[in-house]
Amino acid sequence: MKTKAFSFELIAQDGDARAGVFHTPHGDIPTPIFAPVGTQGTVKSVTQAQLAELDAKLILANTYHLYLRPGDDLVAELGGLHTFMAWNGPILTDSGGFQVFSLSDTRQVDEDGVTFKSHIDGSSHRFTPERSIAIQENLGADVIMAFDECAEPYDRNYNHLAMERTHRWAERCQRAKTRDDQALFGIVQGGVFPELREASAVHIASLDFPGNAIGGLSVGETKDEMHAMLKVVNPILPRDKLRYLMGVGTPQDLVECVGLGIDIFDCVLPTRLARHNAAMTDSGRMNMMNAQFARDERPISETCTCYTCQTHSRAYIRHLIQAREMLSGTLLSIHNIHTLLNLARKMREAIIAGQFEGFAKRYLSDLFM
Amino acid sequence: MKTKAFSFELIAQDGDARAGVFHTPHGDIPTPIFAPVGTQGTVKSVTQAQLAELDAKLILANTYHLYLRPGDDLVAELGGLHTFMAWNGPILTDSGGFQVFSLSDTRQVDEDGVTFKSHIDGSSHRFTPERSIAIQENLGADVIMAFDECAEPYDRNYNHLAMERTHRWAERCQRAKTRDDQALFGIVQGGVFPELREASAVHIASLDFPGNAIGGLSVGETKDEMHAMLKVVNPILPRDKLRYLMGVGTPQDLVECVGLGIDIFDCVLPTRLARHNAAMTDSGRMNMMNAQFARDERPISETCTCYTCQTHSRAYIRHLIQAREMLSGTLLSIHNIHTLLNLARKMREAIIAGQFEGFAKRYLSDLFM
Repeated sequence: MKTKAFSFELIAQDGDARAGVFHTPHGDIPTPIFAPVGTQGTVKSVTQAQLAELDAKLILANTYHLYLRPGDDLVAELGGLHTFMAWNGPILTDSGGFQVFSLSDTRQVDEDGVTFKSHIDGSSHRFTPERSIAIQENLGADVIMAFDECAEPYDRNYNHLAMERTHRWAERCQRAKTRDDQALFGIVQGGVFPELREASAVHIASLDFPGNAIGGLSVGETKDEMHAMLKVVNPILPRDKLRYLMGVGTPQDLVECVGLGIDIFDCVLPTRLARHNAAMTDSGRMNMMNAQFARDERPISETCTCYTCQTHSRAYIRHLIQAREMLSGTLLSIHNIHTLLNLARKMREAIIAGQFEGFAKRYLSDLFM
Repeated sequence: MKTKAFSFELIAQDGDARAGVFHTPHGDIPTPIFAPVGTQGTVKSVTQAQLAELDAKLILANTYHLYLRPGDDLVAELGGLHTFMAWNGPILTDSGGFQVFSLSDTRQVDEDGVTFKSHIDGSSHRFTPERSIAIQENLGADVIMAFDECAEPYDRNYNHLAMERTHRWAERCQRAKTRDDQALFGIVQGGVFPELREASAVHIASLDFPGNAIGGLSVGETKDEMHAMLKVVNPILPRDKLRYLMGVGTPQDLVECVGLGIDIFDCVLPTRLARHNAAMTDSGRMNMMNAQFARDERPISETCTCYTCQTHSRAYIRHLIQAREMLSGTLLSIHNIHTLLNLARKMREAIIAGQFEGFAKRYLSDLFM
């Protein structure tokens, strides 16, 4: 099944860093882009109006969670995820693969698919490539992902096996797809093994997906190993297709991996850190519970233009944390998401201006000051 | 100490219901008005931008809580409560009396004041009328309250004693007050005893406060008893001064008590119900966790103009509750606060149009339909 209404326009390249626009049925996504994660159909503690104010251009939702609750059939009946969560911009769903393989104690994989137990009630369920696509078609996101097997990064034999299964499953996902208003992305696997990553990139590229993701990274390997894998994979993946690094990351990761040719990122980090009282800034991470902020009238970041920094002091945010007030999670989520969205916007400008290398060098040096 | 920059303008009276404007240094408050409660300097789960969008004209903060955490000295050092919480509209602080007397096991009252233990760390503290005013001057709200003794409503002898102490403390609060940019309101006590309420109203009225509150109601007595007390007190309290019914209430309470001449209300109910998954509507309360809403595409209320109802379905809100997502608390708080603010606005219009009786009759009949 071909996809229409999608196209990727490469606007500028600076070294390996790329700036582009991904046209989707729910709007244009400027790249590089960071996608906030709304696991259960909500980016935790943030309203859709606040997400729109943050100018989020792409959000991610998790197939595993929405399949279990409220159920993809219910979401479909209510008009799909865009209508259900009242978000009219582009949405991406993962395949459920990563979550299912994370349930290492309660799942069993075979050639056809995976049987697993729900983390909610222990009930038994089964995902296959066909089932994952059917669920993602019910959810109705703009970008959907192939069902892959995400293995522990250091076991070579198992990674070889999982990679080959991922390739077979990718083709089954392509055959299973019936909707022409969703773009299906393939996923490269292969752990930390260059020869596996190379083989996987060659195979996935040959399947001609409109975008290609790199999975199985940021799962325990070192940063050097992650970068080494990207240096193997990205030159093989077609230049005119999107490259999506799944589950990454930090400001440092975004800068370094855009420099290696990545276009799309997603991560729970900004909202998870917010719930743990941490602010992400362009000059590093701040624990807002710290006593030194008790009487600090400055915003989290003096150069930040987000609602939180334009409105509130470090002292007020610390007070909210001390008083266990929910508003701290909301304010820190807004700030942290803004930090990553704004970093992506600044990188895009730098790439278009042909100044990415200098930007990255300055940014990383400020980050570790 | 006289107060300047405050005045109450009575615009219309319809039966005993009144519409007016209370001019304060931080803006005009149209009355009747409902004040959302921001106990710890935040209306729980709602940003100040969302409160402004709700057009909240007055919010309440609790002296007891802010004194303990972050401390009134810290708030004063950071510019007072308006600056600290970034809310530039009118704020009212209670005196701490109600909270301290709620700590029935750990407080000791004498003629001079009350000694109590912190609910946070068990440390010992003492409030006197002078201390309460000093703390409220540090916090810097527009309206501050006299330090009163709130007794159990049914013990006549104790209510007599507590009422007389409240009167002596009210005068000590007047003498202790030093700032001329805060309006100090007196508080009528007297339990459920008409002769005590009458004596208290006469005494408090004689002290010429710019506004008078009725305390010690909605603390366990019946609605009939509450109404009977208001019928005793309100005709005695001066017509040209604000009347504030503390800690009330429900939509029914607002309509009934505006009909008895009340101008100001405050209550934690809208945000507390939100955290318990309940929506307040003009046709009664709804438990949004109810399975009947699982596939319900309608908003909570089809006539409601709040952000939540303009954006989200009952099905989505129920999903958020089932999935234990914080957003449900925010969305229900926005809706519930809107319901009470909007009810106050509609009552004001009806009073000005001379149609309050009909409005109240229709509203109460819809509420119990």
